[in-house]
Amino acid sequence: MRAFVVLGHKAPLDPGFTLNDLPGAAGRLDVLCRCVNAALFLSHDLRRDVSVFLVLQDQLTVRIHGAHVKRLNPDERSTAALIKKALLRVQHHEGHDELRSTPGISVARRGLEGVLETLQREGFEPVWLHESAPPLRQAPLPRAPAFVLSDHQDFSAREETQLAAFTRLCVGPKVYPASHCIAVVNNELDVRAHGDQGAGVTLAEGRVK
Amino acid sequence: MRAFVVLGHKAPLDPGFTLNDLPGAAGRLDVLCRCVNAALFLSHDLRRDVSVFLVLQDQLTVRIHGAHVKRLNPDERSTAALIKKALLRVQHHEGHDELRSTPGISVARRGLEGVLETLQREGFEPVWLHESAPPLRQAPLPRAPAFVLSDHQDFSAREETQLAAFTRLCVGPKVYPASHCIAVVNNELDVRAHGDQGAGVTLAEGRVK
Repeated sequence: MRAFVVLGHKAPLDPGFTLNDLPGAAGRLDVLCRCVNAALFLSHDLRRDVSVFLVLQDQLTVRIHGAHVKRLNPDERSTAALIKKALLRVQHHEGHDELRSTPGISVARRGLEGVLETLQREGFEPVWLHESAPPLRQAPLPRAPAFVLSDHQDFSAREETQLAAFTRLCVGPKVYPASHCIAVVNNELDVRAHGDQGAGVTLAEGRVK
Repeated sequence: MRAFVVLGHKAPLDPGFTLNDLPGAAGRLDVLCRCVNAALFLSHDLRRDVSVFLVLQDQLTVRIHGAHVKRLNPDERSTAALIKKALLRVQHHEGHDELRSTPGISVARRGLEGVLETLQREGFEPVWLHESAPPLRQAPLPRAPAFVLSDHQDFSAREETQLAAFTRLCVGPKVYPASHCIAVVNNELDVRAHGDQGAGVTLAEGRVK
């Protein structure tokens, strides 16, 4: 069981955005869509043990449950269309409860604080992916880690305070886009679960392309 | 210096495709666009020491030179638009020479064989990312590796023959999409270059988000 929480600082709260301009008019929603891809996709398969939380401007959270999601495709545009549907679902709803929009996707009027509460209630332990921190590869990891990342912008001062209590780890010696960090983290966890540094995959387990 | 060669088995040869349906009408061009992102982007920066070769149906090759490319953005749609321009550039050209389409992007009527010749002429050593192979993490790597990957489809029998002579390595114990493999390979090379497993990045080198 693992989770990724991506903080979208400019991501839209209103479903009226166009799918033809995700980087501009939709507030870098392309970044969040690539994070969903990196978190959930294997080649021709989905990671059913992963959940993704997209926190939009600290106000709305779209959750994609790997265990239940349907109609999720790898490309940015179709993922953005599912996020648009989630925003439509919550548009005229004022409560803070979680609403199902499409199979395996839910939305709630919650920001990072609400997401951290949800994660801990469900047994996840947040891990903050952060600049000057010990490297992921050498670090002990919780059984059910929930990695928290920022989009193309820095963590805000408020977010830094909210995350200060959690373990901080660093993905690599260069500054990566959030989706690359997620791909590296997933690989690291896969290698650890496999127990032999990724050696000796068999044809029965499939190919790595 | 490193390169990534991605074999696009269904990718368009004709520039007439719509940017609104990259997975369908454009033959999974979304896969290739994500590979370009994974190969070339850092957070708010580009990897100037990386080249990407997109081999389209073993007939045309679009090359993106990290050292020179301009107007490249991280999202799929704008990358597909640059590929469309490259296809327009070569559309009525019958020779096999390399044509510049936009800054840092060129196109040629070459398939995998021509790309392998180009790579070796430029001092690259191809590395085949393949299923049952020794793990990347434990493997010695050439100084200038050119990693060859397939898109969402298997390598063809012809491609397997063309690649048979090269070192084969495996990225992890699960079957990853090509773009995830590229992100993991870039991280592995960064960690090796840094010499300490990615530990102790400083603020001067920037953050990992």
